[in-house]
Amino acid sequence: MAETIEPRTLRGFRDYLPRAMAAREWLLERARQVYRSYGFLPIDTPALEYAEILLGKGGAESDKLVYRFLDHGDRDVALRFDLTVPFARFAGQHIAELGTPFKRYHMGPVWRGENTGQGRYREFWQCDFDTIGTSSNAADIEIVLVIHDLFVALGFEQFHIRVNNRLLLNGLLQELGLQERSAAVLRSLDKLPKAGLESTRQEIVSGGVDAEKTDRLLAWATGSAETTETLARLAGTFKDNGQIQDGTARLRELFDVALAVGVAPQRIQLDLSIARGLDYYTGTICETFLNDLPEIGSVCSGGRYDNLAGLYTRQRLPGVGASLGLDRLLAAMEKLGQLPGGDPPAPVFIVQFDPAHLADYFRMAEKVRALGWGAVVFPDAKKIGAQLQYAERHDFRVALIAGPDEFAKGTWKIKDLRRRLETVVAESEVAAGIAHILSERPPS
Amino acid sequence: MAETIEPRTLRGFRDYLPRAMAAREWLLERARQVYRSYGFLPIDTPALEYAEILLGKGGAESDKLVYRFLDHGDRDVALRFDLTVPFARFAGQHIAELGTPFKRYHMGPVWRGENTGQGRYREFWQCDFDTIGTSSNAADIEIVLVIHDLFVALGFEQFHIRVNNRLLLNGLLQELGLQERSAAVLRSLDKLPKAGLESTRQEIVSGGVDAEKTDRLLAWATGSAETTETLARLAGTFKDNGQIQDGTARLRELFDVALAVGVAPQRIQLDLSIARGLDYYTGTICETFLNDLPEIGSVCSGGRYDNLAGLYTRQRLPGVGASLGLDRLLAAMEKLGQLPGGDPPAPVFIVQFDPAHLADYFRMAEKVRALGWGAVVFPDAKKIGAQLQYAERHDFRVALIAGPDEFAKGTWKIKDLRRRLETVVAESEVAAGIAHILSERPPS
Repeated sequence: MAETIEPRTLRGFRDYLPRAMAAREWLLERARQVYRSYGFLPIDTPALEYAEILLGKGGAESDKLVYRFLDHGDRDVALRFDLTVPFARFAGQHIAELGTPFKRYHMGPVWRGENTGQGRYREFWQCDFDTIGTSSNAADIEIVLVIHDLFVALGFEQFHIRVNNRLLLNGLLQELGLQERSAAVLRSLDKLPKAGLESTRQEIVSGGVDAEKTDRLLAWATGSAETTETLARLAGTFKDNGQIQDGTARLRELFDVALAVGVAPQRIQLDLSIARGLDYYTGTICETFLNDLPEIGSVCSGGRYDNLAGLYTRQRLPGVGASLGLDRLLAAMEKLGQLPGGDPPAPVFIVQFDPAHLADYFRMAEKVRALGWGAVVFPDAKKIGAQLQYAERHDFRVALIAGPDEFAKGTWKIKDLRRRLETVVAESEVAAGIAHILSERPPS
Repeated sequence: MAETIEPRTLRGFRDYLPRAMAAREWLLERARQVYRSYGFLPIDTPALEYAEILLGKGGAESDKLVYRFLDHGDRDVALRFDLTVPFARFAGQHIAELGTPFKRYHMGPVWRGENTGQGRYREFWQCDFDTIGTSSNAADIEIVLVIHDLFVALGFEQFHIRVNNRLLLNGLLQELGLQERSAAVLRSLDKLPKAGLESTRQEIVSGGVDAEKTDRLLAWATGSAETTETLARLAGTFKDNGQIQDGTARLRELFDVALAVGVAPQRIQLDLSIARGLDYYTGTICETFLNDLPEIGSVCSGGRYDNLAGLYTRQRLPGVGASLGLDRLLAAMEKLGQLPGGDPPAPVFIVQFDPAHLADYFRMAEKVRALGWGAVVFPDAKKIGAQLQYAERHDFRVALIAGPDEFAKGTWKIKDLRRRLETVVAESEVAAGIAHILSERPPS
């Protein structure tokens, strides 16, 4: 006998078994519906691109994680490590044809050769949505509304979106004379929720920032006053600072509109400590947290940037967008016991009692499907007990059974597999019987 | 100014712009619904696998096409070139947990460094569905029914499925004493529809097969008698040939059940010339053709195999399945002028007339979405004419316009963008106005 090869996946990669995959499909379909309801259009880009397109965008550290190799034609190629860089290339290539403003969503796997600790995977999905070609605050507001509708559509009650604006942050750093050090200070500030106040303070001070200035900054960032009041106070204090005026005005409008549209006040919060690591954000920034699992961090983050595709086109393309962390969200839903997509795709199981009647079993399956329920004919004419055991184990809800006696009388046995109740009905009553067991009308 | 990089994709790779991507999403969603209605469950596997898992399965020719490289840990890895080999590995790894019979569908991109002529791509999608762990003909019949329902669900009227059985073919070759040469003969036979009778005959004869035997084989393969009659005649002529008896019996049952379930006779045909190149098919084989585009070849093909995962597990896993050629089908639908998914995801366009009323525009958009239609607020307060021009160009159907006058009166202008008709209605009448223009009730 030939030797077998050990079946295994690469470290950091994984199979999706049906339960997990059904959940992913459910989540992607819901997200798609919300994105589409706001007029975002779907796109896709190749998994493989020229390395020169993908590399040098996120710094040397991130370049090291990229899967890169020479292809059959000795081209230097790489697997995409996010959906943003390919979108920038895509926009540079197609924006003239598509026109602006252009709204797109893009869902797909990305690859990073990272350490695999802490549930990190080397292949994972991103779901991005962006509006490019406009600087209008209306686009920023819309992104926040999309995030809100998305989490409602995914069945979350307890979540909140934290919003900030880099203009306001930059203006405050300017007032403190810290604009030269803004990158380092913002990086420290961003860790505040996890690191805590004292540790963040030390990090900033040890970076060479005056202690008093650090305290003023941290007081702003952690102030607990009501949103409108905070924004009014900052705007009033720094009347001559253009960035602070701009940033507060945009934030005020964002909160006003979101609340007017019906977003519950506890679901949207101003948080001046949010800075987001990525250097390219220049305006609105936001993060989304599940109230019951704050420790997993933001599950949907994004912001405004000045120019998406400067490397590929001279057309300036300002934009705003966010990215849903699909795998993190699925892990969270599993933890919360609300993993979606659990209903079997086909609830009706037709026992193959007598192989001579195969056509009758398939005819019944077709009839059930025409009513809108999925149906399966068991392929092997095994003992009925074994077939029903399979049906129960695989979560079917209803079994239909007919042998020579039933066919002679024009009846079917119909069995509720959860309650283990069996009745006999005329063929014309089978649909009503299934509906009764499923406590529902046919889905279509 | 920094130099720009030319934005381009690799040869053989392509972007999906919104129109093409909407069509792909529509098609995948329909296919998913049909697969699920038969109880097939979704799975996914990684894009990257150990090279030893993927290579050596399709011969040296196909190995050469595989994208293969050393990863960061110097592991010999490769991108999947189909979904069958990863499924075999997956089954070897998880079948004990999943149990048999196991029915799965799997949709995703695969990569092959092929020549890019004739519309071939190096990245393309496959949509496979298989039932493994059973030899029952019921599973074969179901695969044909799934293909039938799939093409009906995709809106095709004019298609047909050609069915054959390798047992029957092998039995006939045995009768001619050609079993030793079956691979070469079947490869030639498979080209018959494209190459024509005379060229196929020459190829077989020049391979060293007796001319008379070749003619007998070709007479069987091209016989035009009615299905039942053909099968009965072959079964009657070769009473002692087990493979012919088996093959004809399985085919007879397949046709009987399909017709009994309601498949139109012109949509399913016996075709003894179908052999399919892949060596691993051992029973039922089928191909699907669009009547209006026969030249593009089969758009959904598959068959029965004896053992899926012999390389990875000692558990024998016979199975049957088929693969939908997504890209070929999309190209065909475009040619036939029936590319799906063309309706704009958001038909309602809200003009941003007066930025001071942004909250009112977003409120209206939310209201429209709550009724089940997608809605967009234009982000920039440009001239109305420019906004409406954008709306028309991007296929919106309805524009809603309100400025200070309308807000004072509680009315909205509602414009049919195709007919270019504008009316003024009370805010409470907007929903009815949209429904009228779209000639439909809200979709949900």
